[in-house]
Amino acid sequence: MKQLRDSIVAIIGLGLMGGSLALALRARHACAQILAIDRDAATRALARSRGVVDEASDSLDLAARADVIVLALPVRAIIERLPRIGALAREGALVMDLGSTKEQITRALEQLPAHLEPIGGHPMCGKEISGFNAADATLFQNAAFVLTPLKRTAPQAIALAASLVTCLGGHPAIVDATRHDKLVAVTSHLPFMLAAALVSVADDRARDDDLLFALAANGFRDTARLAASDTQTMLDILLTNRANVASAMREYARRFEELALAVGGADAMKLRDILEQAAERRRRA
Amino acid sequence: MKQLRDSIVAIIGLGLMGGSLALALRARHACAQILAIDRDAATRALARSRGVVDEASDSLDLAARADVIVLALPVRAIIERLPRIGALAREGALVMDLGSTKEQITRALEQLPAHLEPIGGHPMCGKEISGFNAADATLFQNAAFVLTPLKRTAPQAIALAASLVTCLGGHPAIVDATRHDKLVAVTSHLPFMLAAALVSVADDRARDDDLLFALAANGFRDTARLAASDTQTMLDILLTNRANVASAMREYARRFEELALAVGGADAMKLRDILEQAAERRRRA
Repeated sequence: MKQLRDSIVAIIGLGLMGGSLALALRARHACAQILAIDRDAATRALARSRGVVDEASDSLDLAARADVIVLALPVRAIIERLPRIGALAREGALVMDLGSTKEQITRALEQLPAHLEPIGGHPMCGKEISGFNAADATLFQNAAFVLTPLKRTAPQAIALAASLVTCLGGHPAIVDATRHDKLVAVTSHLPFMLAAALVSVADDRARDDDLLFALAANGFRDTARLAASDTQTMLDILLTNRANVASAMREYARRFEELALAVGGADAMKLRDILEQAAERRRRA
Repeated sequence: MKQLRDSIVAIIGLGLMGGSLALALRARHACAQILAIDRDAATRALARSRGVVDEASDSLDLAARADVIVLALPVRAIIERLPRIGALAREGALVMDLGSTKEQITRALEQLPAHLEPIGGHPMCGKEISGFNAADATLFQNAAFVLTPLKRTAPQAIALAASLVTCLGGHPAIVDATRHDKLVAVTSHLPFMLAAALVSVADDRARDDDLLFALAANGFRDTARLAASDTQTMLDILLTNRANVASAMREYARRFEELALAVGGADAMKLRDILEQAAERRRRA
């Protein structure tokens, strides 16, 4: 298997993630060539004119020349395109994705032909703005970057994926796909649902009193930030991690109800206990 | 009534809010003198040695010399100290507080002697870290700053409070105390409760899988940020705004339940509707 610096890397999807990957690889002269596949002509033109990618196309066929293929698309778009990637990728190619849930993608990766090296990936970073214009070469810096190898993935392929992550400034963490999906339901999908519900309630209340958003300070804006995430991306994530998200939401609703009862009934002792423990934990996080 | 620049300002409590107020007034040479009352000797010594305040004491008696008295303490501490301020403040003094809930404080302000000018205040800004060390002269910059005058508050006193706010870089907003408390229950106290419950659930889950906090990215940290707020300050706020907070939490729990049902039952259409509307609203906020 080639080293990263000798590899041709094809990135499918030049959005926030794929665009940031291209920028980071280019900034570090990390690989031999960067090919990009994106359906948006303006994005392709911009990436080429800025010298971020060497070639760009709207056809997956371009990926046939790559040693490393990275799918940087919403989860269900990744799953949908994998059979075609399987048919066209060159022998020994590393096929990696950056999807935010891993179980269903792993099942799709298992279907790839035996001559390819599949591995799942999920960088634990992001922004609530999307698209190539939001891309940033430092996005992966100091972020955990989950890798979910399959049983069949060769050690050399795992090593290549890990060096790609390290080269981006990320910290590779080998995690089983099932475990990953259960954890991110709590650390990522639950916070998104909280934020969306908060904005939804505030929006309703603002109909009765239009001063509401004028009084919303930093605290509101930070808590609500994730609600601005791209809806299609989030729907794909939620619907490919339904059971874990629903379970995390049920657990959350019970804790929230406990807090509501403690406030409503003025159980200051209980309230203080929960709040102090949470404050202490958050300061360490 | 004196102009702000000719006034002696006494600040009671040199924490994040009181400390930032002192720093901002000093940086702008906005008043004649700054007196500080704080029970912590190290904080008093630090504020004096940095030239942030002209005099500092642990006794409320120092406030007797002030034209403007600002109580920058947790809500219940403000209410507790007001009778003593009423007994010692000089005739015509503006008595203002920076408490985060206003109804109960307003009732306490109403009890002040007729020769004083009471007004409630609440700057819509903050940090999750507290204390004089976290104080920042730019904290109030561009923030809405609610003022809740009483029926008896003289127009000159309202004008003096507004010029103090403007001098800090804030935007004065005259709001009725009842309306204020109802609004901040949604924009400020509800987000805090969400964050606390999130950290509490994550903490529980982390007992089963210690990788959890390692995978918590920006999104989690931002949504959870408010959970690190000072517990005593938050308890005072919640317990002096119980009915509004409980009502906002009930409304929130219903919306969250709707979302949970849509995810669990995979009602993608309904989910998309709620999420898209929230995303659109948050991007405008």
